[in-house]
Amino acid sequence: MPPTSYDYVTVHKVQGEEITVASDVLAAEEPLEIRIGYGPSGQREHRTLSITMRTPGHDFELAAGFLLTEGIIRGRQELQGVIYCPDVEKEEERENVVRAELSPTATPDLPRLERHFYTSSSCGVCGKTSIDAVHAASCPVLPKNAPHVSAAVIHQLPERQRAAQALFEQTGGLHAAALFSPEGELLLLREDVGRHNALDKVIGAALLQEQLPLHHTILLVSGRASFELVQKAAVAGIPMMAAVGAPSSLAVKAAKDFGMTLCGFVRQGRYNVYSGEWRISATASDT
Amino acid sequence: MPPTSYDYVTVHKVQGEEITVASDVLAAEEPLEIRIGYGPSGQREHRTLSITMRTPGHDFELAAGFLLTEGIIRGRQELQGVIYCPDVEKEEERENVVRAELSPTATPDLPRLERHFYTSSSCGVCGKTSIDAVHAASCPVLPKNAPHVSAAVIHQLPERQRAAQALFEQTGGLHAAALFSPEGELLLLREDVGRHNALDKVIGAALLQEQLPLHHTILLVSGRASFELVQKAAVAGIPMMAAVGAPSSLAVKAAKDFGMTLCGFVRQGRYNVYSGEWRISATASDT
Repeated sequence: MPPTSYDYVTVHKVQGEEITVASDVLAAEEPLEIRIGYGPSGQREHRTLSITMRTPGHDFELAAGFLLTEGIIRGRQELQGVIYCPDVEKEEERENVVRAELSPTATPDLPRLERHFYTSSSCGVCGKTSIDAVHAASCPVLPKNAPHVSAAVIHQLPERQRAAQALFEQTGGLHAAALFSPEGELLLLREDVGRHNALDKVIGAALLQEQLPLHHTILLVSGRASFELVQKAAVAGIPMMAAVGAPSSLAVKAAKDFGMTLCGFVRQGRYNVYSGEWRISATASDT
Repeated sequence: MPPTSYDYVTVHKVQGEEITVASDVLAAEEPLEIRIGYGPSGQREHRTLSITMRTPGHDFELAAGFLLTEGIIRGRQELQGVIYCPDVEKEEERENVVRAELSPTATPDLPRLERHFYTSSSCGVCGKTSIDAVHAASCPVLPKNAPHVSAAVIHQLPERQRAAQALFEQTGGLHAAALFSPEGELLLLREDVGRHNALDKVIGAALLQEQLPLHHTILLVSGRASFELVQKAAVAGIPMMAAVGAPSSLAVKAAKDFGMTLCGFVRQGRYNVYSGEWRISATASDT
């Protein structure tokens, strides 16, 4: 089945101390591998240029726009067309790989690309050798049952984080990642324009202080929960992650695979638990 | 002067139809180049691993966390230390380059890194050969005076975008990028979990329909305005960009360099104009 733009999941909705089970819709997040074909007729070559985490839909536009804005092509005339790659073995991954055929006369600067396709502030797919590897990323084992956290603790985290966000107060423009104890005490907070950087700063601080793995902590992130944030948290051994915004479909899948507790939409006295609800204690009243 | 975490700018504040001049504080955004040293004593080698757009501050933690969460090191014992690179020529760039010295016994899988350090959903620094190049990115020339837009048009954009965001309605978890006419008519909207993908989809759609350069359009992005979004918009010839959230310092600098009109915090009947205010007409009452 080709990937869709959204995904249905079962969630535990927490309001105050009460937990109910409900269905929820998530924005889909899937890797898209962009390959290019280039060179004069009869001597065409192909290579992978990029893997990006995207919401399926308008994939050819995404590839075309990426090629232009990253300087691989200079205009429409250098692009023959974009197709889903027919030679991908697994059918379910076929629409996660596109191939852009450049015009025979296009001359992309490939040695420069090879040297300088660096990672960015939101990069976590880096270093994966294939889409398979993205799904099968190996991570340290998280503690199965610890920590055990009261539902009320989660409600308090955003306000405590915001109170400690000195730079946000001034600029209104920064992401934050913060570690809390299972009792809700703020342990460490870092801010950055890039949300992955904020988390890397938190994990790096813990690493430099020889505090890894972070088995007895809760992580709060200011924005949405992406696959890459869940993966970074798992590498550091963090068993619980809460986000002020929405999680993506792949963030939920990864959290389930790692046995991580993932909460989303933590605001205004409510939140949803997308996985690992057994670490949170409250009055259960399943409907 | 070493980079700081924030930056002061002069802005034109628009409330309704009235424009006043004021001072504002922005979150700083600067490139950080992460280099590593590795190999046995006496045969040390050095190479650049990544350039990321980050907010200056806690740079050693950022580098350490990045190395761990991207699988370059497996723990504290593989990292000897992190320093600002002493052999960077320009003093003002010295604190934008860090060098992490791995332990002589650490064995990072460099061929794998070389093959597979791909770009991500938020990547726009890719393809730049150095920090200099990030600052000096060449872009098409934008039309100097067109379009001319009424201040009232900008106020309406977020509501019109939101009304058209089908997926966001369901999931609460997607970024959007949309093109509008100078009169505020919605021309094209795309959604994605990655904000750079949403913009690449919009630009790619226009490219495939041979509508570039987009000289007679206004771009609205749902989140914050980063350097990378401004740069992508400029490549497509977009002369005006509005963001619901805050811009970074480098986004404002880039918009000024390109002659692009940049508005931020467009919400609740207000917004700030950070550059190119001459394209917006309203009652000026400088204070």
